[in-house]
Amino acid sequence: MSTEEFIWPVGFRAAGMSAGIKSNGAPDLAMLRMDDGAVAAAMFTTNLFAAAPVQISRDHLHNSRGHANVLILNSGCANAATGPHGYADAQTIGDSVAQECGCAPDAVLMNSTGIIGKRLPLANIAKCIAPLSQSCVDGNAEPFARAIMTTDTRLKMSTRLVAAAPHGAGNASVQNVKNTTNPAQIRVTGVAKGAGMIHPNMATMIAVITTDAALEPHELDAMLRVAVEQSFHRISIDGDTSTNDSVFAFATAQRGVAADHGELQRAFCEVARDLARMIVCDGEGFTRAFEVRVRGAASAADALDVARTAATSLLVRCAITGGDPNWGRLLAAAGRSGAKVDPERVSLRVGDVVLFQDGQPANTKKEIAATEFAKSNVIVEFNLGLGEHEDFFISSGMTEEYVKLNSEYST
Amino acid sequence: MSTEEFIWPVGFRAAGMSAGIKSNGAPDLAMLRMDDGAVAAAMFTTNLFAAAPVQISRDHLHNSRGHANVLILNSGCANAATGPHGYADAQTIGDSVAQECGCAPDAVLMNSTGIIGKRLPLANIAKCIAPLSQSCVDGNAEPFARAIMTTDTRLKMSTRLVAAAPHGAGNASVQNVKNTTNPAQIRVTGVAKGAGMIHPNMATMIAVITTDAALEPHELDAMLRVAVEQSFHRISIDGDTSTNDSVFAFATAQRGVAADHGELQRAFCEVARDLARMIVCDGEGFTRAFEVRVRGAASAADALDVARTAATSLLVRCAITGGDPNWGRLLAAAGRSGAKVDPERVSLRVGDVVLFQDGQPANTKKEIAATEFAKSNVIVEFNLGLGEHEDFFISSGMTEEYVKLNSEYST
Repeated sequence: MSTEEFIWPVGFRAAGMSAGIKSNGAPDLAMLRMDDGAVAAAMFTTNLFAAAPVQISRDHLHNSRGHANVLILNSGCANAATGPHGYADAQTIGDSVAQECGCAPDAVLMNSTGIIGKRLPLANIAKCIAPLSQSCVDGNAEPFARAIMTTDTRLKMSTRLVAAAPHGAGNASVQNVKNTTNPAQIRVTGVAKGAGMIHPNMATMIAVITTDAALEPHELDAMLRVAVEQSFHRISIDGDTSTNDSVFAFATAQRGVAADHGELQRAFCEVARDLARMIVCDGEGFTRAFEVRVRGAASAADALDVARTAATSLLVRCAITGGDPNWGRLLAAAGRSGAKVDPERVSLRVGDVVLFQDGQPANTKKEIAATEFAKSNVIVEFNLGLGEHEDFFISSGMTEEYVKLNSEYST
Repeated sequence: MSTEEFIWPVGFRAAGMSAGIKSNGAPDLAMLRMDDGAVAAAMFTTNLFAAAPVQISRDHLHNSRGHANVLILNSGCANAATGPHGYADAQTIGDSVAQECGCAPDAVLMNSTGIIGKRLPLANIAKCIAPLSQSCVDGNAEPFARAIMTTDTRLKMSTRLVAAAPHGAGNASVQNVKNTTNPAQIRVTGVAKGAGMIHPNMATMIAVITTDAALEPHELDAMLRVAVEQSFHRISIDGDTSTNDSVFAFATAQRGVAADHGELQRAFCEVARDLARMIVCDGEGFTRAFEVRVRGAASAADALDVARTAATSLLVRCAITGGDPNWGRLLAAAGRSGAKVDPERVSLRVGDVVLFQDGQPANTKKEIAATEFAKSNVIVEFNLGLGEHEDFFISSGMTEEYVKLNSEYST
């Protein structure tokens, strides 16, 4: 599939350019315009050192009661831990964008990624705002997606079409087909940048999910939360929650047709999961994806605790890189997760191969297990045998390359 | 200081030998005898997949109300996740040891370290129990310390002398002098094996702290808990709590003099901290120790949360390896720790160099900070400016070598 098929829903225009924030001349400033306005929602990092643009976006979204006209993002500098000067810088940029785009200051949302603790090159950005806003076009999402990349090696885009509901629901369905101009279809398109942190202090993940469906602010907010819970909240590369992580969602209501909310939710979830998986698979030093599924947990929290603890265990992740059928580390992770686990009831498999059950090692040939652990996408499944709850978590093998890249000196 | 100065307190005899559990013929079986009995205490892993010998030791300690005559340890095989067969194996060994040493089965404590999910070579061990128990001698602790090593590259031993209290307290003091036969001095000697996990599924840390002081079981237990809280509970290499981690303590009351309990507690803490630091500094791929100190926290839990989160952050640990003055990652770790943190009040320094204060970066030259981050023992200090609580946590730089060693195939 060509990247040209990743087009914006109706009502969005975007552009990206190089503002010289990055020293290598790569695109580093991106704008997404919703000229007729859009309903907006966002989820921001819970880190108490939230960056200045995150603080400002949070306030604007609150003041506008969930509406926005412009999103401006930069890479190369996170504007985090920069104190009152950094906060003033972000406000200055927001005000310039509002003036240029002819909207209220509160209708501007923003974020930055890059080095923590450095000021933005304000003059560079200021002189780019007019040309950037004037170059926004509808259609292809690629220029925007490219401008928010940092050390990402691949563009991260996903799109889905949802059939309009005949009259308030029915047999609508999500279609995984990309290019259509059928006016009875609503589009959901997402772009993201990953957790690339080759240069130290990079921060970090940003995703934007857009649709031309008509949604109330509380509906969009709820839809975003469900999607994020099943996607970005189920992946880990570093185990760190950065100062700038954020996911934005916008709905322009430009289709003039209604979507079945269940189908639209499904499209949101699929787009978010696509983007989340792309982020994991573009992590530094990535060699192998690793998914832990948990069934039979006594509670929802237990299912997530076991999945997250096993998927993020450093020793387990090292074993995954080695393609090692190293199930003792997986059991040990489950046993220290804090979840209710009974060693007599746990079963563990990798792919279709049973590794442990009835309180003891299964009689599985090591070579057969090794084949599963050597796959490009290793899937292990715990059945805790204690209840009906299930969950999952996705990470990757821990590699020497990751450590090397993240140990390198920052200047 | 020669290792011969690390001698057992009065009432202990020990030996180590090769029982062929390890394929390379290295020492792998060790015994510590207290022929006139000893008060005993222990802290075991909280992992729900606790190994068979851990389960049995827990029961024996409970049944004996805190007394023991023998401790038997092996390396090379953890006897964890081995089901009822593994449990029976450990019981068989315990019964043989009791018979050989002429004590009750409940007076035998035990543990195993090595690969998870494999059965012990019972016949090999059985035929070694008699010669091992007959070769135990007092004095030098080295043969025992050597036999419990796995991938440890250095012996881990520490000892302290405590002056006897004139009559129930007074001006007693801990002495950091090793060889004395002064009968008015009580000795505390500890040995440990580290978290060496070069071969996958190795599990893991064992420490033994011995003294010839006279203590009641509840007194020894309390003293051990205080010491462990300030030492083994403040270090991390993998972030994993293994199936076999344990710390044993024994007191023989063979000195016939009383110790000031405050001084004795101090000696326990110092020995435990020595051993804990040796474990960190002998971790796989170790290049640099890293200590995070936190002051000014609003609560004790907050102080520990910030210290632990910063010291165990993968991104921070990578930066430490690179000798990188990468303080943005440290702030981000504090901000996501869950502790109460106010960015306006936090100050952060490395050594004596201020990195961040008053809500913004300090005006510190990067080269000056880099000198501190390149030291063999990097010490960073947060002052949260919110209260009186403080704590610390010790880890190390994350290295490519660590990942390499832990990714290697297990056979």
